[in-house]
Amino acid sequence: MEVIEMLHMNGGIGDTSYANNSLLQQKVISMTKPIREQAITDLYCSSLPKKICIADLGCSSGPNTLFVVSELINTVSTICKKLGHDQSPEFQVYLNDLPGNDFNTIFRSLPRFHANLRNEMGSALGPCFFTGTPGSFYDRLFATESLHFVHSSYSLHFLSKVPDGIESNKRNIYMASTSPPSVVKAYYDQFQTDFSMFLKCRSEELVTGGRMVLTLLGRRSDDPTSKEGCYIWELLATALSDIVSEGLIEEEKLNSFNIPKYTPCPTEVKTEVQKEGSFAIDRLEVSEVNWNAYDDQVYPSDEFKDGGYNVAKCMRAVAEPILVSHFGKTIIDEVFRRYREIIADRMSKERTEFINVTVSMTRKG
Amino acid sequence: MEVIEMLHMNGGIGDTSYANNSLLQQKVISMTKPIREQAITDLYCSSLPKKICIADLGCSSGPNTLFVVSELINTVSTICKKLGHDQSPEFQVYLNDLPGNDFNTIFRSLPRFHANLRNEMGSALGPCFFTGTPGSFYDRLFATESLHFVHSSYSLHFLSKVPDGIESNKRNIYMASTSPPSVVKAYYDQFQTDFSMFLKCRSEELVTGGRMVLTLLGRRSDDPTSKEGCYIWELLATALSDIVSEGLIEEEKLNSFNIPKYTPCPTEVKTEVQKEGSFAIDRLEVSEVNWNAYDDQVYPSDEFKDGGYNVAKCMRAVAEPILVSHFGKTIIDEVFRRYREIIADRMSKERTEFINVTVSMTRKG
Repeated sequence: MEVIEMLHMNGGIGDTSYANNSLLQQKVISMTKPIREQAITDLYCSSLPKKICIADLGCSSGPNTLFVVSELINTVSTICKKLGHDQSPEFQVYLNDLPGNDFNTIFRSLPRFHANLRNEMGSALGPCFFTGTPGSFYDRLFATESLHFVHSSYSLHFLSKVPDGIESNKRNIYMASTSPPSVVKAYYDQFQTDFSMFLKCRSEELVTGGRMVLTLLGRRSDDPTSKEGCYIWELLATALSDIVSEGLIEEEKLNSFNIPKYTPCPTEVKTEVQKEGSFAIDRLEVSEVNWNAYDDQVYPSDEFKDGGYNVAKCMRAVAEPILVSHFGKTIIDEVFRRYREIIADRMSKERTEFINVTVSMTRKG
Repeated sequence: MEVIEMLHMNGGIGDTSYANNSLLQQKVISMTKPIREQAITDLYCSSLPKKICIADLGCSSGPNTLFVVSELINTVSTICKKLGHDQSPEFQVYLNDLPGNDFNTIFRSLPRFHANLRNEMGSALGPCFFTGTPGSFYDRLFATESLHFVHSSYSLHFLSKVPDGIESNKRNIYMASTSPPSVVKAYYDQFQTDFSMFLKCRSEELVTGGRMVLTLLGRRSDDPTSKEGCYIWELLATALSDIVSEGLIEEEKLNSFNIPKYTPCPTEVKTEVQKEGSFAIDRLEVSEVNWNAYDDQVYPSDEFKDGGYNVAKCMRAVAEPILVSHFGKTIIDEVFRRYREIIADRMSKERTEFINVTVSMTRKG
């Protein structure tokens, strides 16, 4: 569990020490904005509630932590103005991540965040209350029917644990084209278990008509071992394999290492939502973002022109804690040096993108 | 504000580095248990709610942080068993302190706390949800009518700021028998402003019939400068004055130093509650606890037999941050060495007690 906690924390939105990773997730948040905007607008206009309780699951602690929350509050306040209401409803915001997340830093940033929000929106903004809720989103986190809107971005592709029975995955560290079918099945089983548990918990916490918008790393293809979801990890496995070949890591150590994540295709997401039965899907969309988030940006410095550097740095934010806890600290720099070279090589030769699956749904009555 | 934040944090219940202080507050919590027990029992039995939302204001971060919460949950669960209910209601717990409080440590202790709660109470315990709410309790913290029970112990005697207009308080650091009447009035005015604001905020957050139990350091006497509330600070002022006389602190530095607290008598508490008008007082009680919390204990070691040592240590937990921010670090050890001697001398010659005022009230309809 320790390992997964670390992975969750670092894989969540925003990581103060990895600006590159933040930029990637900022791009994804910006791309998926229209979906959230529609959901919160529909929610507000359908019932004009006096209070909107919003939960952000896997909020992490970094520059993007409060981004979506402020966007949602902004959207509702703007609608209120258009409708001629004097003031927006009250907002109760629950920021969730695992208990190891740095909530202190979030909490200390809240007074300034709150003041900026008031400055921007003026007297039309209703009272806003912020709380932190530590715990796994694969369990109940909130009281029954206490939420109106749930958001989660770039967290829910992490499984609650490494699937059981994948000893035969050997030199792979995630599903790969060379993984035995039993491994692929074990990963999918774990995704089904976790995602259906997530849906069940949220269905109990959301009021009827409540909305939920989730963005996960995923894939377009029906083939779970297609490159879209797995390639970036296959390249990390290659870097690790090279190091095994040179005797710096024992082969057995690599064989027993696997990443607790799953990159679903839209159909797999849809299937679980339909099986669980509490939610109606409003939108289910796929988007892509280049491995190198700086690709269509003005580069802040020459360093950022090196896509291999950027992507390796971004992946390091996600993978370093779990690698360290399994392999120890000493080989980490070497792993990422090689990983960076391998990534740069691939990026120069082929189109490389992350695929995002975003689903927007309504809690049925 | 910075200074007051530090004072709040350290003055709240529990401070991991000052076990003595924790013991004192543990004694107070234990003494006031029957009052809370009656309040939560009345609350539950009068409406049998499906969900009980509890806020602990000034929870701090230490061994006592979750003590009252666990006691309240336990009380309700025991009633449920007696009434033959299968399961207690859901509990939504809000732990509040200023944004500088160490919420990370609380949050990391929650999984074990929760597991222990489940072990103790078994399947009769309903779902429990824990959140952290950073902010000053002299402002709104929670959504309108979202709470059923508010508790605060040993936090509310801290004012939101040092009162204005007390420049004439010179060598005193709190109200004292030698303070000019204008200083005493300024302290009382600030208490009235702060406590009425506290009541107003809580009246908006509590549901009709909701309960609130508050324990403050206070006094029995109607005289605000009576020894009960002020003496312990007068002795600290004496220690500081001695150091001024020796030229280690500039006189002006001491003259401009005052503590942002107020130790009300029961009548003053009652007056504010009646003026604000939203609450009916159910109980208003005074209790006392010896300056040396170890006095009626088996001493854990010989060191604890020295009452001067224990009380100075306890007061250091509360006062050190605010002293450091005003006078700097260098003189602190010397201040508390002298303070310890002065306290030991007084304790050997007279009866020395802290007075607690506890008020239990119900939100009127």
